[in-house]
Amino acid sequence: MLCFENDYSEGAHEAVLKRLLETNMEQLPGYGTDRYSESAKEKIRSVCGCPDADIYFLSGGTQTNQTVISSVLDTHEGVIAAQTGHIATHEAGAIEWTGHKVLMLPQKEGKISPGDLAEYLASFYSDENYGHMVFPGMVYISHPTEYGTLYTVKELSELSSVCREYRIPLYLDGARLGYALAARGTDVTLRDVAKYCDVFYIGGTKVGALCGEAVVFPGADTPAHFMTKIKQRGALLAKGRLIGVQFDALFTDDLYLTIGRNAIETADALKEVFREKGYEFYINSPTNQIFVVLENDRMERLKEEVIFSFWERKDETHTVVRFATSWATNMEDVEKLAALL
Amino acid sequence: MLCFENDYSEGAHEAVLKRLLETNMEQLPGYGTDRYSESAKEKIRSVCGCPDADIYFLSGGTQTNQTVISSVLDTHEGVIAAQTGHIATHEAGAIEWTGHKVLMLPQKEGKISPGDLAEYLASFYSDENYGHMVFPGMVYISHPTEYGTLYTVKELSELSSVCREYRIPLYLDGARLGYALAARGTDVTLRDVAKYCDVFYIGGTKVGALCGEAVVFPGADTPAHFMTKIKQRGALLAKGRLIGVQFDALFTDDLYLTIGRNAIETADALKEVFREKGYEFYINSPTNQIFVVLENDRMERLKEEVIFSFWERKDETHTVVRFATSWATNMEDVEKLAALL
Amino acid sequence: MLCFENDYSEGAHEAVLKRLLETNMEQLPGYGTDRYSESAKEKIRSVCGCPDADIYFLSGGTQTNQTVISSVLDTHEGVIAAQTGHIATHEAGAIEWTGHKVLMLPQKEGKISPGDLAEYLASFYSDENYGHMVFPGMVYISHPTEYGTLYTVKELSELSSVCREYRIPLYLDGARLGYALAARGTDVTLRDVAKYCDVFYIGGTKVGALCGEAVVFPGADTPAHFMTKIKQRGALLAKGRLIGVQFDALFTDDLYLTIGRNAIETADALKEVFREKGYEFYINSPTNQIFVVLENDRMERLKEEVIFSFWERKDETHTVVRFATSWATNMEDVEKLAALL
Amino acid sequence: MLCFENDYSEGAHEAVLKRLLETNMEQLPGYGTDRYSESAKEKIRSVCGCPDADIYFLSGGTQTNQTVISSVLDTHEGVIAAQTGHIATHEAGAIEWTGHKVLMLPQKEGKISPGDLAEYLASFYSDENYGHMVFPGMVYISHPTEYGTLYTVKELSELSSVCREYRIPLYLDGARLGYALAARGTDVTLRDVAKYCDVFYIGGTKVGALCGEAVVFPGADTPAHFMTKIKQRGALLAKGRLIGVQFDALFTDDLYLTIGRNAIETADALKEVFREKGYEFYINSPTNQIFVVLENDRMERLKEEVIFSFWERKDETHTVVRFATSWATNMEDVEKLAALL
Repeated sequence: MLCFENDYSEGAHEAVLKRLLETNMEQLPGYGTDRYSESAKEKIRSVCGCPDADIYFLSGGTQTNQTVISSVLDTHEGVIAAQTGHIATHEAGAIEWTGHKVLMLPQKEGKISPGDLAEYLASFYSDENYGHMVFPGMVYISHPTEYGTLYTVKELSELSSVCREYRIPLYLDGARLGYALAARGTDVTLRDVAKYCDVFYIGGTKVGALCGEAVVFPGADTPAHFMTKIKQRGALLAKGRLIGVQFDALFTDDLYLTIGRNAIETADALKEVFREKGYEFYINSPTNQIFVVLENDRMERLKEEVIFSFWERKDETHTVVRFATSWATNMEDVEKLAALL
Repeated sequence: MLCFENDYSEGAHEAVLKRLLETNMEQLPGYGTDRYSESAKEKIRSVCGCPDADIYFLSGGTQTNQTVISSVLDTHEGVIAAQTGHIATHEAGAIEWTGHKVLMLPQKEGKISPGDLAEYLASFYSDENYGHMVFPGMVYISHPTEYGTLYTVKELSELSSVCREYRIPLYLDGARLGYALAARGTDVTLRDVAKYCDVFYIGGTKVGALCGEAVVFPGADTPAHFMTKIKQRGALLAKGRLIGVQFDALFTDDLYLTIGRNAIETADALKEVFREKGYEFYINSPTNQIFVVLENDRMERLKEEVIFSFWERKDETHTVVRFATSWATNMEDVEKLAALL
Repeated sequence: MLCFENDYSEGAHEAVLKRLLETNMEQLPGYGTDRYSESAKEKIRSVCGCPDADIYFLSGGTQTNQTVISSVLDTHEGVIAAQTGHIATHEAGAIEWTGHKVLMLPQKEGKISPGDLAEYLASFYSDENYGHMVFPGMVYISHPTEYGTLYTVKELSELSSVCREYRIPLYLDGARLGYALAARGTDVTLRDVAKYCDVFYIGGTKVGALCGEAVVFPGADTPAHFMTKIKQRGALLAKGRLIGVQFDALFTDDLYLTIGRNAIETADALKEVFREKGYEFYINSPTNQIFVVLENDRMERLKEEVIFSFWERKDETHTVVRFATSWATNMEDVEKLAALL
Repeated sequence: MLCFENDYSEGAHEAVLKRLLETNMEQLPGYGTDRYSESAKEKIRSVCGCPDADIYFLSGGTQTNQTVISSVLDTHEGVIAAQTGHIATHEAGAIEWTGHKVLMLPQKEGKISPGDLAEYLASFYSDENYGHMVFPGMVYISHPTEYGTLYTVKELSELSSVCREYRIPLYLDGARLGYALAARGTDVTLRDVAKYCDVFYIGGTKVGALCGEAVVFPGADTPAHFMTKIKQRGALLAKGRLIGVQFDALFTDDLYLTIGRNAIETADALKEVFREKGYEFYINSPTNQIFVVLENDRMERLKEEVIFSFWERKDETHTVVRFATSWATNMEDVEKLAALL
């Protein structure tokens, strides 16, 4: 069975696993205070170009979004996101669970535009009843988006300007950030992310780690007692080393910056196959997720030999499905899939 | 200054105030266990045709929506509402504050259609990822809607059928229910509301009371220990009599069923004025709220002599505004406004 | 049937009711922006000696505690209270419902001591694991306490000093503040309360109003967008006038400062009766609540003719019960009770 | 530097790590639906003697307590725990964060007694005001307790009887369950735990895993859509395999039942050392945590060569500290510590 189901089908990158093995019997203090966590933070600060950044390690993406957003917002505030944003759709209401509304903006290919954001905020404050409404207290974007698309530096810069005008933080969900950084043609680096965002996370789970995401507050304006807030939300690992060691490996020898290339190369090859065979793309994604429209009968037959993801029904006879590659995808599997198609 | 700002500009209907005066020095037990609250409940049960209904009195509309919805939903569930529903827009995130998402449906003139609801629910359960999404656990409608429009018995019946098919309760927000019942041409009675809804509230604040809403569970399937849940949400009045006495007055001699007529008659007269003068209606509302499009300069001049409500900006030079009548509106004031226009 | 059940058995003081009647048909803006609310605030500022105070009107005590505490605390903080504090015992978990722990201190006659508070705070910060614990973010006291006892100016001042040393606000629950101010021998005035507390509320429900409490932030350091936070918690009345008018009456001609005297006088007379008849007092309360130990058989017989409150079981054969007087208690009823005993 | 700081100082047991390595590149479905998770569940069902049990894997202890308790309780309910219970003290208010109060019972050596529990429940329902109080909706115990002590089968059985009489579930926090099972003289097996508890978790983090706890509902009466509830609380790992594989290893060849023996043996040896040297024990703990009273100067000197945990101040000149052993402790280190003392 071929598997293009997602980018978390395998365990960890071998360099990550190797570090876990090497450090396994070292006795280290808990809760992320160990020296590997410290070393990983120092490396991340360096590559992000923000020497004073506060950095915390959490286990997964939904947990990270929930913890960051509910710690940054005041109680009467909500978070602005694209209608297709992960927090708006596939996190089972994790944000609302903490008492905050997700305020939805229209999106184009998964992205929100600086213009729409500015209009939303201007419109909010010009509504005479805004005192009875949920205040916009933060802007959430994902990069790559849920559709694998990417913001440009110009877009990030403009979103950031709007946010700073209204004094609300810009938060970037980088669950798949490694694939964004490795994409062809992108002009966005980690330094840009750190420059334009007020808080963001660097995804590990989908980019070579067993688990783990690194939250970065580049300006060190972390919510008070954030460690306690993490604990309170059930998100503090006793063996913080588990994530610290992995990120230390991911940020050694630029592994995080190169790990995504295989995903991009195999995705590009796979897109070429779909293109040649005349398949319809649902969206033009430059990263590791490929959205294809399949005729339902064909989809059912393909399912017998390949694992891929349901995305959404298109019409009575067609379905949008997703093929994902990752740091671990074999070009051989792409060729096998090509043969099948 | 003429005032058509809303339907809660005055205090209480004189019959309501009279009962408060008459009973003022009686010593009564607290928390809604007094005999006036009991009498009011019995009268409501009778007019609703549901002798076993459980009934509770709360202070205001947002509080009632928050208390009912957060008590009925399981933690992983959200409540479906029109995008223009009060809980989705003007309750400052009161539902999310209790941990639940408001799931938004498209609306037409403030109403959701049984077809859209059925499609939403079918679509939810056919999405292979629904386990990662917020479950629909309740349907919220308002009657009249936020645009003053009304459901028909047929629509209520169909919405109810869809809800019962999926075993989720249908909840009706009746903040202005008195005006719905008094509207010309409506076929919906309190008995219909009690028949098709699983829980609803009869609004007092906007229909002749100083404060107070009556929550009705017609099938007596109230959440366990609902009184304690009300207390926990800060919504239990020590002097429950304050609302009990008022509802006892409102449901004596069918006052609640007749109190709305004045609002409808004055609204109709006012609509006639706007029509004659060639004003554009934003929506055709059959109850006590009139939505008119005003050219901005004209609006500013009118503001100097009349109080009305901002609704939304229509375009650069026009604004949608609302004129509201109520049980207390004088026909004389309508005539004065006509003269002004 | 004689009734000494509580201090909210009757409706409103006649002066309060009169103002409601007089203003009933005035058209006023909603949500507490009317001129009576404004006038009431100005009068309260004046008597409290804090001309810049922010003041808000809410409906009831539990609601007020919930709204204030959950708006002031940061998410990782809890509120310190006596083990017998209302928020710790009889508010059905309203504070926890908003995500915050009630941190309990030992009490003596319902009061917490400055020494115990200082020790708790010192101990917290000297515990090496405090990062894994709930941070103390506020101190809650009630005056009178749940046992009718009173703090002295010295105690208030010392509690305030400890709070200010640790930079946590001191919050005073004044549900029965009118009875505290009228008690014999107390040295605490409203000015003292405003001087030593960072936020407090002046209770109306139990002191002559139909409903309503006035929250005062004497230093005007109100949480951002507090009105929206009130709305979000379901605590904003559309007809804010209902409470504004009542407080305007209560603070006209010092009514609030005198209304409690009748409660104190009748309570003193009643205490004298119990003393003469040899009843055991559970606690020596200087305000309007009298706690007496009754032998169970005697209690059952007395229940046939007098309504009073169960407080707690003392032992197999005795129960602690409470007799309460109020602004509305008749001395005649005290005499009838004396005859019965 | 010698380290007896806690039982999570090292990484994973070698057998656990080996399985992670072996399975690392297998492509597996996410969210715990992989075959290793399934295999682990089957093994746990077998050793617990409950073939129909529902089992879920979560990352850490606080997260597990928060997720289970907030999913099982109705909104108006709280959870009963010992005053020293982990959820009552060292989880930063994680339970209150979800809206529920921790109702505290007195404890003896970290345990609650069936008698105290029965009395609390009887007293609650005999209080005439219980409708205004937090309902007891669950009982939380830890085994071993926070003081390393153990319940007997008789005690578990009696606690269970009281819970079943009041129809509230008994929940056992087994963060260190492996050390309880391996303790000398205990009569409690996993089958007993499954028999007397309605839900419990088997701790991995402190017993040989990198992370992970296994929640067991022996009677399969899991809260509806528990997987979605886990996701909503931010506790669902994308790579569920990470925990599934580890528990599959821990429950292969009875590893979990034997892994604790080393902790017990080294703890016993260490206790013998303390006893011989005349140290005062704070409590007599039969598992892997040793609580010793140290004179402060001596403590400071010892800190220079050994890492142990602060527990609490005893008096001006003495401190209670904790030495912990684990599956990974070397007897050699015990000897070194003996030499130091």
